[in-house]
Amino acid sequence: MKEIYGRVALIGLGLIASSMAHAIRRAGLAGEIAGTAKSEDSREIARELGFCDIVTDTLADAVDGADLVVLAVPVGVMGSVAFEIGPHLKPGATLTDVGSVKRAVVEAVAPHVPEGVHFIPGHPLAGTEHSGPRSGFAELFDNRWCILLPDSRTEPAALGRLKELWRGMGADVEEMDVDHHDLVLAVTSHCPHLIAYTMVGVADDIRRVTDSEVVKYSAAGFRDFTRIAASDPTMWRDVFLNNKQATLEILGRFTEELFALQRAIRTEDAELLFDYFTRTRTIRRGIIEAGQDTAAPDFGRGGAR
Amino acid sequence: MKEIYGRVALIGLGLIASSMAHAIRRAGLAGEIAGTAKSEDSREIARELGFCDIVTDTLADAVDGADLVVLAVPVGVMGSVAFEIGPHLKPGATLTDVGSVKRAVVEAVAPHVPEGVHFIPGHPLAGTEHSGPRSGFAELFDNRWCILLPDSRTEPAALGRLKELWRGMGADVEEMDVDHHDLVLAVTSHCPHLIAYTMVGVADDIRRVTDSEVVKYSAAGFRDFTRIAASDPTMWRDVFLNNKQATLEILGRFTEELFALQRAIRTEDAELLFDYFTRTRTIRRGIIEAGQDTAAPDFGRGGAR
Repeated sequence: MKEIYGRVALIGLGLIASSMAHAIRRAGLAGEIAGTAKSEDSREIARELGFCDIVTDTLADAVDGADLVVLAVPVGVMGSVAFEIGPHLKPGATLTDVGSVKRAVVEAVAPHVPEGVHFIPGHPLAGTEHSGPRSGFAELFDNRWCILLPDSRTEPAALGRLKELWRGMGADVEEMDVDHHDLVLAVTSHCPHLIAYTMVGVADDIRRVTDSEVVKYSAAGFRDFTRIAASDPTMWRDVFLNNKQATLEILGRFTEELFALQRAIRTEDAELLFDYFTRTRTIRRGIIEAGQDTAAPDFGRGGAR
Repeated sequence: MKEIYGRVALIGLGLIASSMAHAIRRAGLAGEIAGTAKSEDSREIARELGFCDIVTDTLADAVDGADLVVLAVPVGVMGSVAFEIGPHLKPGATLTDVGSVKRAVVEAVAPHVPEGVHFIPGHPLAGTEHSGPRSGFAELFDNRWCILLPDSRTEPAALGRLKELWRGMGADVEEMDVDHHDLVLAVTSHCPHLIAYTMVGVADDIRRVTDSEVVKYSAAGFRDFTRIAASDPTMWRDVFLNNKQATLEILGRFTEELFALQRAIRTEDAELLFDYFTRTRTIRRGIIEAGQDTAAPDFGRGGAR
């Protein structure tokens, strides 16, 4: 047990914030955890579950005296929350966030950060398709990456403490440049999500195939898509609106590539298809070797434990 | 233990055939299991693992005296295998297959089926991203669907026995029309696979994002794609070449829909995105209720057990 911050304030009480609370407690990383959320329901549930020491009704009360403030709200409201809490932040405190896009968050939040407060954007690469205060659990960040995005003016001591907190919650920490982050995530997360959403939408739309058939014969491929496409709609809407440029760039590449494969099917270019599918298999092996997944077959059941 | 067939011959010794052997043994559904494969390596491994009672070097020896013959080879070679075994099939025997597309298999196989042999196409909706004789396991078909595709001339008794076999291996059996099968599977399996292959290929191709970054920051979305895209290249090449029409139709719908979402991102149509993502969430709930998946979060680790 090693206390890194006296008081931590979690703004937003969804999957990430509630998991942070559980993980902070598991390792005794904070003296006290305060939390708040816009929704009265979420605050009530958080009080009932007791993963925060105190759940406040206002943002000002939550951040009062906090050594670390974590913005765990949809990307689209980060700016307005920062505007509201700015005047109440303790000098010397660290302000971070957990948003899935970073350039837009930096632009929305940075103007409201007072002198003497350390703003260090962050993004834990962890999640499930569930959301809300009941969905959190202490193990969410174990062996997952947390990307921190300091700049040249970031104070090393403040950065070091925040790294220690994430490591204490089980994560591996990496630093990255803000714009590069948004491109990497467009490739590895944002576009795959949009594509999964699209395919699930198409399936629902084919009138000759009934919804119940789609559901019933949801073999491996499609079922994994629906899992992805079940993620929080507000969060994902904000991701796409706020990582517009990189998402559109990667989608352009994707459709170009998809058209090439479509053409290979139409022209029955067996060799192109075989070579392509062989190449993608290699990438999968790299992921297993990097320890981000296991080689265990999923039995066509998509991840139940 | 209820023996349904005296001798079963498995042609091809990959994931599906080896799993069938394990599942048939588990429930004692056959007096004897014979198997063969084109690759000498696969035959050697099958002998070593011992999941067949006899592994033969030739197709003729494998099907000799068999009451049930199962074609578990890539869709592209079903016709030539049927041509070769046709003269050796026992009168009254049942011939089935496990191919992922059905119209092309029926067209390739039916002409070689002698009078008095019951040809009943089949498709078990089960699999993992692994392939080969070492990848099989007895539980693969448990609670999965197996679609059988009889026509008006199929003998009810022969169909009944084949259904019993699949149920004995743990599967739930449904009947479907051949062309409708190919459309349903294009939606639920073939197109999702092609899309996953494409996205994995794009990721590999973005030069500003290194392969190691893609691998390292392979958050939920992309990792699920790589799992899908790691499936057997030969099998999938044949699927697309042999379910060309339905695949291209669904891909056309998919790109149309993707362009609409792309446009919504470009024009920042927040409402359209939110509504779309909310609708896809509902479909996911349907799949959980239909029992084809569980609501358990996958912890962002994509299905390790």
